Amino acid sequence: MLAVTNCAQLVTLAGPARPRVGPEMRALSIVEDGAMIIRDGRIARVGKREEVEPHIEPEAQLVDAGGRVVLPGFIDAHTHLVFAGTRADEFELRLAGIAYHEIAARGGGIRATVRRTRAATEDELFALARRRSEWFLRNGTTTLEVKSGYGLTAEDELKILRVIRRLNETTPLRFIPTFLGAHTVPDEYDARRADYLDLLINEMLPRIAQDGLAQFCDAFCEEGAFSVEESRRVLSAAKRLGLGLRLHADQFSDGGGAQLAAELGAATADHLEYTGDRGIKALRAANVQPVLLPASAYVLGAKYPVARRMIEEGLAVVLATDFNPGTSPTPSIPMVISLAATQMKISLAEAITATTINAAYSLGLGARVGSLEAGKDADFVIYDCGDYRELGYFFGIELAKEVYIGGRLVFSRPES
Amino acid sequence: MLAVTNCAQLVTLAGPARPRVGPEMRALSIVEDGAMIIRDGRIARVGKREEVEPHIEPEAQLVDAGGRVVLPGFIDAHTHLVFAGTRADEFELRLAGIAYHEIAARGGGIRATVRRTRAATEDELFALARRRSEWFLRNGTTTLEVKSGYGLTAEDELKILRVIRRLNETTPLRFIPTFLGAHTVPDEYDARRADYLDLLINEMLPRIAQDGLAQFCDAFCEEGAFSVEESRRVLSAAKRLGLGLRLHADQFSDGGGAQLAAELGAATADHLEYTGDRGIKALRAANVQPVLLPASAYVLGAKYPVARRMIEEGLAVVLATDFNPGTSPTPSIPMVISLAATQMKISLAEAITATTINAAYSLGLGARVGSLEAGKDADFVIYDCGDYRELGYFFGIELAKEVYIGGRLVFSRPES
Ligand SMILES: [Zn+2]
Ligand SMILES: [Zn+2]
Repeated sequence: MLAVTNCAQLVTLAGPARPRVGPEMRALSIVEDGAMIIRDGRIARVGKREEVEPHIEPEAQLVDAGGRVVLPGFIDAHTHLVFAGTRADEFELRLAGIAYHEIAARGGGIRATVRRTRAATEDELFALARRRSEWFLRNGTTTLEVKSGYGLTAEDELKILRVIRRLNETTPLRFIPTFLGAHTVPDEYDARRADYLDLLINEMLPRIAQDGLAQFCDAFCEEGAFSVEESRRVLSAAKRLGLGLRLHADQFSDGGGAQLAAELGAATADHLEYTGDRGIKALRAANVQPVLLPASAYVLGAKYPVARRMIEEGLAVVLATDFNPGTSPTPSIPMVISLAATQMKISLAEAITATTINAAYSLGLGARVGSLEAGKDADFVIYDCGDYRELGYFFGIELAKEVYIGGRLVFSRPES
Repeated sequence: MLAVTNCAQLVTLAGPARPRVGPEMRALSIVEDGAMIIRDGRIARVGKREEVEPHIEPEAQLVDAGGRVVLPGFIDAHTHLVFAGTRADEFELRLAGIAYHEIAARGGGIRATVRRTRAATEDELFALARRRSEWFLRNGTTTLEVKSGYGLTAEDELKILRVIRRLNETTPLRFIPTFLGAHTVPDEYDARRADYLDLLINEMLPRIAQDGLAQFCDAFCEEGAFSVEESRRVLSAAKRLGLGLRLHADQFSDGGGAQLAAELGAATADHLEYTGDRGIKALRAANVQPVLLPASAYVLGAKYPVARRMIEEGLAVVLATDFNPGTSPTPSIPMVISLAATQMKISLAEAITATTINAAYSLGLGARVGSLEAGKDADFVIYDCGDYRELGYFFGIELAKEVYIGGRLVFSRPES
């Protein structure tokens, strides 16, 4: 038995067993002077100190939160964690005014990462991804969705998905794998897109489904990537194989991606910078969760999605990092909360809901993680502050002091 | 003797013994596969490994940088480090659409921090500031300018300045104190501004100068704070007492602050979000360094200064955090570099020059810190990356692995 005591604020997110919408997103169910009992890696009891203390057994291991804030571990529902090389060079070119499509024409962009990722061995990719996964952990993230998509051959996509499986088996973090073979058409298929789609649908998807290497399938639905029709073909095939669906939609134009996600019953539609009224209504009607990615809008100097509007329309908004080497080199959910607050006027409470319980539901994990309630996995973080709002108020620093997954201490910052 | 070896990039900033302007700001003088010898806390030799290694004595203590990047410690030339309380509550109100002046009218804003800072003891303020100073250190900052300005009585301003002196004496960081009694007119002088100016000029300034508690004097020249004429009176008095000058200028309007800084021969003019052509030309003619603070523009959702224009006009630009509880709760220079790059199109090399050697000159420390050259203090940082550009490319995380001040290891991140 583990007992966590002396929590200035135990931010539980307790509430209905479904994603939170509208004003519910502001209800964090905070217990002041709270305590929590954990048994066999799961939460057994949560409440006010005086209610919980009588149930603490004498031999329990005690964790004194020291008057700090305790939250569920963050759930990052959109990352591209597994890749080789950085694109810091390209970042410099963009600062100098070279446009993204010009960089792509010079062999940069996603294709540059594809070349490097193909050239890397599975062990090299694993070492890189494991190091980066520690950056997430240090910032309070305990569960990550991770997409493939920098391989774009059957072997290279499987290589990436095996790296994700190995991360799951050998690190404390929890990883949810998504197959994103439809990230871009690789160079060698430039003149024969249809052949790449056939390869994706007839070879990659069945192998991945058979090996259980992915839980979700995603596609980049955008001019220059995959059309609505092409994305529909890929995702429909994935759905027939039993995979859940996610979709990169409307990042650079309102191209009907949100409506496609709704039509297919996807779990999420991601990005949505340019999604208009019809898209929002379609997502609402089909209960598709929007996954908003303000860090990539920040890096690109692009438009932010209309997040407030989406919350007001009753969508169960999720916020994620979009961690990737091109447009969002941040692993920090607190940074995303800061961006959501300052740039999209999302309140700190809404942003925390969007990165915990709502993110959990978007990955089919709502019953297991995302809140601190009896029966759930004991994934929680002690932050070095006394008020949860300091998490999005201070920015650019790491405030997580101790991170627990399944009741086990997996990160601890030395006392300062 | 200390010898640092195996630096993938030793970013020395070696160059002319003056602030860097124009294209010089892009010249970082990087030594690849570099090494450095330190004797008695100062840099004795810097160069290529093969040039330096023969000079390493057998008994030297070796620091293996492990193929990482080494930079001079960052110099944060504009902070308000010493205050009590956060303003996370107010941050939430602003997100909800309540305007800054409305919050001030409700008793919030600077005055809220003044109330809390007055109520705090010197020991309490010291403990708070010391804890926050570690956040700076963890992010690679080794020297900080710190302003008073949340006391606004003689006793409370002196209390803050004594806290800064104590930080200097008891922590490894280097602090440069600035007197900012002209931050805002305190409540009790609402109806008699002239009396507050008299108090400032005739009582506070002479005591501070006599006790050697400040190196610079600053004023907040802005509608609602102090007029150009009032700021001129305060700063002229400070100048007669031998203090250097800095000025909060043109943050919310082009009110002639830049011209005033030029007229008085100030070391810096800070903020400059609204400074126009005349102000820029005046700064240029008088060799005043602009200190740009993009983190506060980010938090307020306000206009960024025309940083590119200033570099092109030949100003020796400095970038700083503006760390304060109202508009810029970030202690991270890497975060400021990210903001400067993505939001103001400053290149990563320019941003590093602006936060090292140019910042050092703005504080009168150009001969002592800000670059890695023989004779200078051995203030340097080893970052967990292989290319300096990763420092502004990745964001929201702490990449400093080891921080040295005067050749002494003062921060070390546990191996991950
Ligand atoms: Zn993505
Ligand atoms: Zn300031």
